[in-house]
Amino acid sequence: MCTPKPQPPCNSKVLIFGSGNFGSCLASHLGDVQHKVYLWCREERIVKHFNTHHRNPVYLPNHEFPETITAIGPEYPTQEVLNDMDVILFAIPTQFLRENLKRVNAQLDHDNLPLLIFVNKGIEVGTHALTLEIIADTCGADVARVATFISGPSFAKEIVERQPTSVSVASLTETEAQKASDLFHQPHFRCYIGGDPIGLELSGALKNVYAIAAGMADGLGFENNTRAMIITRGLAEMTCIGTAYGASPLTFLGLAGVGDLFLTCSSRNSRNYTVGHRLGKGESLETIISTLGSVAEGVSTAKGLKKIIDDLGVNAPIANSIYEVLYEGKDTQTAVRDLMALPPSRELELPPTTGAPAYKLLEKLGLNADSPRQNLAEWTRQR
Amino acid sequence: MCTPKPQPPCNSKVLIFGSGNFGSCLASHLGDVQHKVYLWCREERIVKHFNTHHRNPVYLPNHEFPETITAIGPEYPTQEVLNDMDVILFAIPTQFLRENLKRVNAQLDHDNLPLLIFVNKGIEVGTHALTLEIIADTCGADVARVATFISGPSFAKEIVERQPTSVSVASLTETEAQKASDLFHQPHFRCYIGGDPIGLELSGALKNVYAIAAGMADGLGFENNTRAMIITRGLAEMTCIGTAYGASPLTFLGLAGVGDLFLTCSSRNSRNYTVGHRLGKGESLETIISTLGSVAEGVSTAKGLKKIIDDLGVNAPIANSIYEVLYEGKDTQTAVRDLMALPPSRELELPPTTGAPAYKLLEKLGLNADSPRQNLAEWTRQR
Repeated sequence: MCTPKPQPPCNSKVLIFGSGNFGSCLASHLGDVQHKVYLWCREERIVKHFNTHHRNPVYLPNHEFPETITAIGPEYPTQEVLNDMDVILFAIPTQFLRENLKRVNAQLDHDNLPLLIFVNKGIEVGTHALTLEIIADTCGADVARVATFISGPSFAKEIVERQPTSVSVASLTETEAQKASDLFHQPHFRCYIGGDPIGLELSGALKNVYAIAAGMADGLGFENNTRAMIITRGLAEMTCIGTAYGASPLTFLGLAGVGDLFLTCSSRNSRNYTVGHRLGKGESLETIISTLGSVAEGVSTAKGLKKIIDDLGVNAPIANSIYEVLYEGKDTQTAVRDLMALPPSRELELPPTTGAPAYKLLEKLGLNADSPRQNLAEWTRQR
Repeated sequence: MCTPKPQPPCNSKVLIFGSGNFGSCLASHLGDVQHKVYLWCREERIVKHFNTHHRNPVYLPNHEFPETITAIGPEYPTQEVLNDMDVILFAIPTQFLRENLKRVNAQLDHDNLPLLIFVNKGIEVGTHALTLEIIADTCGADVARVATFISGPSFAKEIVERQPTSVSVASLTETEAQKASDLFHQPHFRCYIGGDPIGLELSGALKNVYAIAAGMADGLGFENNTRAMIITRGLAEMTCIGTAYGASPLTFLGLAGVGDLFLTCSSRNSRNYTVGHRLGKGESLETIISTLGSVAEGVSTAKGLKKIIDDLGVNAPIANSIYEVLYEGKDTQTAVRDLMALPPSRELELPPTTGAPAYKLLEKLGLNADSPRQNLAEWTRQR
């Protein structure tokens, strides 16, 4: 068993791994209210620039960061620094999380555990693991059980401008979610807590696939009715997949679900939307990826999702179409025509048997999980 | 007991009451596939113009309607015409529905009932009745039980352009919902059926109040995070109110719920959004209404909704704020500040006791309703 530290004090010491867009904006948000923030960067050049000018030269370059933030790195934080922290926040891409967590765990005092917060989104390529499982694999089940997750519709640029923003905060241990909410909550940054990190993680990963679909429809010249249809039918698919996986269907109705889906699908700033939009305009995936610089997350998630959908036996025509367009050379016009030609159906058909993957994961975490639930009624009865 | 006619044939006779934007576009959609459509208009001038030019001079003026549509009126259809119809569709505003249904019912052969479809949205001012209750009051419980409802994200202009569109179709009698779906379903107009007309109606009415809120935030200069927050927290409120009323929470996740909410909240074409946007810019409600020509539906719904919220004892801070801005002179800046200053909470707190109004309504329809449900688990167990 691990022992989390008590509620982080008003002037907490917070270490943030990752100085990208989102890590930087969360550093700014916490530094604004007098927490002592250490922002770990992989590049010495950025560390020096940040500490001299209080600016991140790569992300949010127009934003002046509060002086409560110190950039550190590129050396890894020492054991002493790590265990002096009240909070450690991971804002690094899912695909690099496993290696980083291994290093952190080797130094972490499990009897005096800081509040651990994860804001990355996506499924690990190859293993199809959620972050909760990566944490269990690298740091042990006791750490995974107290890990907290933040997700929701939150463009970094608007957070540093203190535009009103809301996020979901979830953990299997509700007292830890409450600590994370207390740390972040401000009138301009509202936190809503919940107990379904699996649903929260699936929402954050899957929405990127549906953002590609929404972008594609816009690229093909369709208008408002079609975009609303894709968002809503995409949400229904996400909810069915999530329920079959073992998450609560109601999580997809929240900020990490419909909120972030809406933001991502209606913004031309989203990389995933852009991939879809350019596919709809007729460009090839190769051209798009080569000019976009890096792969949008939904492109790799679509592949992992295909495996999950097939394993679960869930009906997910939009996700399957996106997979066919990305990986099997199906043209976008045909994809749309095939989708629209599907036979009519009931609006929301939740899968008859649910929860096998979540059951397996919760077992791995040493939680006394119930057996896979039979249906939604079972799900809600057990909460 | 009434006896509905069998499945409308391929070349059905369809009477549409109301030649506004939505009635006209649905006439076009059905006329396109060789149904014989009669479009009833209140103005002789429009009837003549339509039958001469196959255009509606007031709504969708650029659209050429198929010749399968005949405009009729301003005289009321005779008993013979009414009872010769396979389908009667009501596309008239909720506030005029009661008087029209009384006239129709006086002539209607209940032993040979056409398929009855309702596409109006909103709560009746004064009574706070849903359309289902208005139908029961005017035509009897037997007719209300077989009535069907269509709702979803569907701008009329895009429907006549055959832009891909999806809608929800609901009825307490699923075979009737299936008939309405069979009548309307096309590859470019997908129908999804469900059995919760109360949730469908509440979605369609309530979303207009939250569209005012979304417009207001945009008018005040807030950006994407804030709009996504309002849509998502608005959806959570709608779901709580609907569940307390006795609808299924999952209906709000569908096309008539989140789909239409998204369309209405993100479109500057929406009258409700426009009211909110201009309020946010500092105009008074009086000025807005006087220049807008007529009252946007969300303005009156906000008043009816206030009564429903108070009666149910549901926590609905956004709807209450809109009420205060519209009817109690609260300024929009203060409304936003007060909302953001609310204490943090759990993400979705469904009401502990649900279903009293729906229970009463279903009793009125002679349905063997269960007693008010205790919570979501009860709800889903009983479906």
